[in-house]
Amino acid sequence: MHNSPIRSVLDALHECILACEHCATSCLQEEDVKMMARCIQTDRDCADVCRLTLTLLARGSAHGKHLLRECIEVCEVCATECSKHEHAHCQQCAEACRRCAEACRSVTV
Amino acid sequence: MHNSPIRSVLDALHECILACEHCATSCLQEEDVKMMARCIQTDRDCADVCRLTLTLLARGSAHGKHLLRECIEVCEVCATECSKHEHAHCQQCAEACRRCAEACRSVTV
Amino acid sequence: MHNSPIRSVLDALHECILACEHCATSCLQEEDVKMMARCIQTDRDCADVCRLTLTLLARGSAHGKHLLRECIEVCEVCATECSKHEHAHCQQCAEACRRCAEACRSVTV
Amino acid sequence: MHNSPIRSVLDALHECILACEHCATSCLQEEDVKMMARCIQTDRDCADVCRLTLTLLARGSAHGKHLLRECIEVCEVCATECSKHEHAHCQQCAEACRRCAEACRSVTV
Repeated sequence: MHNSPIRSVLDALHECILACEHCATSCLQEEDVKMMARCIQTDRDCADVCRLTLTLLARGSAHGKHLLRECIEVCEVCATECSKHEHAHCQQCAEACRRCAEACRSVTV
Repeated sequence: MHNSPIRSVLDALHECILACEHCATSCLQEEDVKMMARCIQTDRDCADVCRLTLTLLARGSAHGKHLLRECIEVCEVCATECSKHEHAHCQQCAEACRRCAEACRSVTV
Repeated sequence: MHNSPIRSVLDALHECILACEHCATSCLQEEDVKMMARCIQTDRDCADVCRLTLTLLARGSAHGKHLLRECIEVCEVCATECSKHEHAHCQQCAEACRRCAEACRSVTV
Repeated sequence: MHNSPIRSVLDALHECILACEHCATSCLQEEDVKMMARCIQTDRDCADVCRLTLTLLARGSAHGKHLLRECIEVCEVCATECSKHEHAHCQQCAEACRRCAEACRSVTV
């Protein structure tokens, strides 16, 4: 249905959305929520930007390519923030964001 | 474009989304974020459920009516949670959620 | 990150979203678009309802379970409509919708 | 809750989303759907891009400003396409898209 280079971007976006939604919820349940406030905020934005990017790419929209650039930036911001925290959900999210940024970059050239 | 009973539901949903997004962000900046964790969580869900309800109603989808019921419930849960907190953003959000639930209820009968 | 029964629902929702977005775009490029109008409409609704269901389940929201019921219904409506058309994208979408409904049903009991 | 320059952008985005969703549905019910295929496609993209822009601005996200640029472009593409068709829903949508692009532009400088 979707050709392979785009397909792996779609899957990386899916993983990133799952990781961000899970990380935000888990951060809200941590003992020190205050320390996680910025992480929750970047998770929210990253999940939403990835969601639109995935949608536009899946439908073959001309605007999908434009969103990719913004998506890469948001993923990198989120990866940087998440990687500061020791929690497993933060480390996993940082990794998913980094892979997603990389996957997006691979189709923007 | 949209006839008037639905139009006021669409506007109430818009207000509710704005209030929930703003409340979540403001809660994350409060001194005692931990106390706001449940509020942030219900704001997130309420904004997203309202967003889909608005979308389906705006396009005249048969599924819009089904979402209304769930939307009313989520708005009431969010209103109850927000009304527990003194912050202006929480009180305003509780009010927007209550009005949204009421507007949704007015078109479900 | 997400435990396995939910994980397969999340993946089935992802496949269903991809299939619906792709089917809607492809229908719009068919010779006889008029015949595809209902298919495009159900694809739009199905993609959006699956998107919210995926979001709520990924974040472990209490409202995710409620959306599952609506999601099953929308997926079945979309599968029925898509299966009426010979186009490969319609047949693939019907299949993805059926699998998604089944996956959602497996976690609602 | 939201200060006035941003508030009018949020409302213009809301109007634009309503107009795009309504226009897409109405186009699908026109006699000559084939002639409306591009209009439906731009309506879909415009509604989704406006939806994310509205979400990010409502939550005061740093990424809201970035989306504005993309949003202006998508609104202009959609306005141009819609203005080619005589249908009332297309003319109204073209107008809503133009006003939305203008509102977005007013806060990007």
